[in-house]
This record gives sequence, C-alpha cells and structure tokens, in this order.
Amino acid sequence: MLLTAETSALLLVDYQGKLMPMIDGAETVLNRALLLAEAAHLCGVPIWATEQYPQGLGGTAPALVPWIERVFTKTHFNAAAELDLREALAPWRGRRIILGGCEAHVCLLQTALGLHSLGWPVTVVSDAIGSRRASDKGAALHRLTQAGISLISAEMAAFEWVQHRDAPAFKAVLTAVKKGAS
Amino acid sequence: MLLTAETSALLLVDYQGKLMPMIDGAETVLNRALLLAEAAHLCGVPIWATEQYPQGLGGTAPALVPWIERVFTKTHFNAAAELDLREALAPWRGRRIILGGCEAHVCLLQTALGLHSLGWPVTVVSDAIGSRRASDKGAALHRLTQAGISLISAEMAAFEWVQHRDAPAFKAVLTAVKKGAS
Amino acid sequence: MLLTAETSALLLVDYQGKLMPMIDGAETVLNRALLLAEAAHLCGVPIWATEQYPQGLGGTAPALVPWIERVFTKTHFNAAAELDLREALAPWRGRRIILGGCEAHVCLLQTALGLHSLGWPVTVVSDAIGSRRASDKGAALHRLTQAGISLISAEMAAFEWVQHRDAPAFKAVLTAVKKGAS
Amino acid sequence: MLLTAETSALLLVDYQGKLMPMIDGAETVLNRALLLAEAAHLCGVPIWATEQYPQGLGGTAPALVPWIERVFTKTHFNAAAELDLREALAPWRGRRIILGGCEAHVCLLQTALGLHSLGWPVTVVSDAIGSRRASDKGAALHRLTQAGISLISAEMAAFEWVQHRDAPAFKAVLTAVKKGAS
Repeated sequence: MLLTAETSALLLVDYQGKLMPMIDGAETVLNRALLLAEAAHLCGVPIWATEQYPQGLGGTAPALVPWIERVFTKTHFNAAAELDLREALAPWRGRRIILGGCEAHVCLLQTALGLHSLGWPVTVVSDAIGSRRASDKGAALHRLTQAGISLISAEMAAFEWVQHRDAPAFKAVLTAVKKGAS
Repeated sequence: MLLTAETSALLLVDYQGKLMPMIDGAETVLNRALLLAEAAHLCGVPIWATEQYPQGLGGTAPALVPWIERVFTKTHFNAAAELDLREALAPWRGRRIILGGCEAHVCLLQTALGLHSLGWPVTVVSDAIGSRRASDKGAALHRLTQAGISLISAEMAAFEWVQHRDAPAFKAVLTAVKKGAS
Repeated sequence: MLLTAETSALLLVDYQGKLMPMIDGAETVLNRALLLAEAAHLCGVPIWATEQYPQGLGGTAPALVPWIERVFTKTHFNAAAELDLREALAPWRGRRIILGGCEAHVCLLQTALGLHSLGWPVTVVSDAIGSRRASDKGAALHRLTQAGISLISAEMAAFEWVQHRDAPAFKAVLTAVKKGAS
Repeated sequence: MLLTAETSALLLVDYQGKLMPMIDGAETVLNRALLLAEAAHLCGVPIWATEQYPQGLGGTAPALVPWIERVFTKTHFNAAAELDLREALAPWRGRRIILGGCEAHVCLLQTALGLHSLGWPVTVVSDAIGSRRASDKGAALHRLTQAGISLISAEMAAFEWVQHRDAPAFKAVLTAVKKGAS
C-alpha cells in the first residue's frame, strides 16, 4: 500500500501558464507540484506532463519544465483518451501513476478516471491539484474517493519514495521538503 | 465511470418559487441548476422536472422553465413513488439519472434513494442541491455517499458531456460555464 | 433504504440534566431530539430512553420525558450490554433502531456499535448527538461511518416516517418541524 | 468492534523533543497522548514507543517517558520495517495496535500501513497525531480511512477499555479524562 519509487510514475496534468492564475490557491498547488517533481527526479521516478490546447492556455509553468521528460499535447479533457499517451505508457505497465494537475474537477479528474478504467493503478496528490472554485476541487476529491482512487499529499510521496534516512536521496529530498515549506 | 451525454438524463427536483427563497445558498444552487440545464440541452440530454404541491409552493423557477421538456407533479416526497413518473422513465432504462434539487435532505434525497432502489443508476449534483439548513444538506451528502450514490459538480457534468474541445457543443458550453462563473 | 415508521424504533441515549449543560451545541442537540420524539409519537414509532447513573447525572431532560414510553437505567456505557434492555427489545426484532444521545463518542457510540454487533439495524441521527468536545463528536461520526452505520438528520427521519403530504400526520409533523426551526 | 483492554496494545510513534515544537496543535496532540498512556496503564494495556534518529530529533517527550515499557529506535519511517520491533511484537499476535504519533503523514502513516500489511489489526487515534501542516494531517486521515484502518479519539479508547462505571479503573480514568480537559 505504501508507494515505492521503483513502481511509481509521475504525470503532471495541464499546469499551464494561462490556466494557473485562475486556480484557487495556485501558489500552493505549484509549490507542491515542484516538490513532487524534484523528489521524483531524485528517486528515479519518470516524470511526464500533459498540455491542453497550449496555443490558447500556454505551455507548462516554467519552474516545472526542467524536470519533465516528455510532454503530451491533448484535445480530450481525459488524457487517457489520447492514443500517443497510451502508447507511451504501455511499456510502463505495472507502475502506479501518481497524478497532480488542473483543473481538479475537469482534466485531472477525467484523466484519473480514464487511466483507472484502463486498469492502471492511480493515486492523486490532493495538495498538488486545483480548480478555479474550491467547491469544485472538493467535489473532485469526493468523486475520486468514491471511485476507489487513493489520495496522498506531496510530502507523503516524497518520504515513501525515500523509505529511510540512510537512503542515498534522503538529504536532498529533505532539503526539497524544507525549501517547499518556507 | 465518466458521464456521457448519450447515457444521461437530467431530473430537476422541486426548484419551486416559494421554496427557493428559504434555501441556504439559493442563488448558487439555482445558478448551478441553470448551467446543468443549459449544458444538458446543448449536448442533447433530456431534461425533466418535478413539482411538489405547486398550489402551495409555486411553480418551477422561471429561469429553468424554458429548458424543461416535461414536468411531473407529485405528493410523495420521493418522486420515484409516483406512477406517472415511473411510466415516463421506463423507455429510458439504462440512462443514468442526474439529479439536482431541493430540499437536499427531503425530496431530493428521497427521490435519489427511491430511484436507486428501483435499479436506476443515479448521480447527484452536489452544488445544485440545497436545504434550509446547511447541516441538513451535509447530512444528505453523507447519506447519499453511504448509499453508494455518486456525487458530482455541475461543471463536471458539463465537461464530461462535451468530452473534448473539438466537440460541436464545446464553445457554447464554455460560454455557459463562464456566464455561470461571473 | 428509506426509513418507514412501521419498521423504526427510537432510542434516546442519556439526555440527562447534569450532562447536557457540558455538551457542545447542547441547545441544538436537544431541539433535534425533541423533533425526533414528537415526530416519532405522531407516526406511531415506539420511543425508549436510557439513563447512565441518574443518581449522579440526573434524569432525562424534562422536555423529552412526556414522549418516552420506557426508561432503562444502565451502568455499562454500551446500553446493549444491559440485559433488561436486550430483553425489552427482543419482541421488536426487525425494527431499525434510530439513535440520538450523548456523549456522541462514549455512550451513544458504544450503544450503536453494541446493537450493531448484536445484529440490529442501526441509524444514528447526527444533529441529535453531542459531546463535550466537537472533535470527539467528529471522531464518533467518522467511526460510525467506518462501521457501516448510516447517519441521518432529525428532519430526514420526520419526513421519511410521513412519506407524503396526504398522510394523516403530515400537518402536525410540519408544525413540529417549523417549531424546531424557529 | 469496540476496543477491549485485553486485546489492545499502545504504540506511541516519534513523540520526540525536537519534532513536537514543529507540529501543528502540538499541545493538544501531546495532551491526548498522555491521556492514552495513562488510561492504558490503568487498564493494563502494554505501552511501547518508537524514536526516529534520536541523536538529531531528541528523545521521547519527558511527560510520556514514565508510562512507556520499551522504546524502539528506528531509521525506516515505517517502524514495521524494523526487525527488532517485529520480533518484540510477535508474542502479542492477536492484539490490536492502537497508534498515536508524529508526523501523521510520514512515520505514523507508514507505520500504520506497514503493520496493517503484516496482518495486524490497527487503529489510529486521530486527536493524538499531528503534522507540521494541518493539510498533511488531513491527507493522512483520509488515506488511513481509504486503507480501511479505523480512527478513534483518545477518550473513546479510554472509555472502551473501562467499559462500565463499576470497573476498578473507572474513577482513576475519569480523573485522567477531566485532567486532560482542563
């Protein structure tokens, strides 16, 4: 039930430049996404991202870009309906997809439910997701729970990927956690 | 698990003129019901409504009336106990009934549980329901959850019915969403 | 899943004179207990009560006394551990026990779990229960939910027992509801 | 479903001197841990504790020390990954492990999930756990619930261990409860 780095993959959904300023609590959401990305990188977890209609909504937030290994452009709100993403994921079968992103109740939710219905284990990072309205984010968390999709926080993921204080990545992850807390 | 327009039907429960002014957060509740109705219409989802004792509680809120295809008058709090509604629903077997309405803990709740016990898939729109007391609405959401009835928000429904940004209804639904947000 | 008067029995747990003043939100808790008792009486639902160590904690709140058909004194926090209560309940097998009372996380909780483990269907009225600390009441609601015990509000019970506006008790129950709201 | 003293064991996770001052609501968390420890002692429930890297994070909070029968030092965040703790627990198979501690979303959570995956019945005391961020504690409570781990409050444990007001430990436990409330 605990996450491990060897069985996780991180998918960052639509953290886009013209969408984020409309998100409730955007600063915290991005801060948590950064911790996720940095900890994933330190622990060897692959990191992918999606962008919805980047011509209109802009590209992924610049602070996240250096950590991302591949970006998928999409027109469906549900990224799992895009064939190139499904093909790229196929060799990673067995990994749990850790999801953060926006809006919590549209693209993030539809992607979580979409991957879940394709048989992927899915976990959503509740403090790294956001919607314009707080009530819509609340409704998304409720629906994910009803669908049996587990929720975690960004720090939970970081400390489960590390496992113990003698792990090689421990000190660097701890530094990232403390940086995020300031 | 995601909604589709082809497998949904919208039932608006007791949004009546003399009841709504007593509802906690009535303005938001009606605003979300209007988004639901407009998005349903744009996506071809059938729209029905119920009225409890309209002689006393008044008719359905005027803003909703143009979208509604048929109104059912009832005396049971549980609309599913009314034979004419059950007969009218019968040809739509297989559709998921999307429910909004008032009061959340009386007629809306009883109708949701009533339809559920008759074997209909039921989903309740949590931001389009209301009670006089906020605590009664909270208790209704809790009981619906315990009964295994899924909860969504109005925007979730709209964006799942549309599915992707190249859909014919996308721009009109986006306009309705933005109108509702203002 | 909806309650009916014919299959319900109401058990009021430890609404005692020297305990109630220490309860968080005591006025609302008692007000909701009164609505429950009055609606139960109007709909023919049997009404029982328990008292924990009345020599020290006082008798049941005077406003509730006229509605109660039988009082059980107990020393176990879990009323279901008392033999006289179990014998008195035996002829009512098949009824769902509707529970309100104090403290939510001690005697009410233990009685709910105790009856549940003896095979009785149990439902707890969330706005008619209270603890000294709000956090303890919250923990009680969470644990009841985890144990699969359903939660309702007092008005839910009243309107489910009545069922429809042509029922003989409808007007009197509506009067009780409005009195409780003022 | 109710706890009994004869089938419980209390494990206090990382209530350490240099960690506690960073915990949100630390005073309440420690106060509830003290009630747990005192009630466990009065009812004959064994009491153990863990410490994470005590060279850096300090020893267990002094007020708790007198109640603890054995302390386990650990380097894994999940105490159940430490072999000496697993060996020490082995003779107590069948007991339910009652857990309090910090941080709620790291060592406490990982220990709860770790013991759970080894087949131990686990219950977490929600008002005796804490994290630096309240949102991380909330995420921990949600994940424990999703994993099927039951949550209780410290007073619930105390009154279930005692069972009734004629129990030998009743008066002393009541005194401890009242002391904690002041």
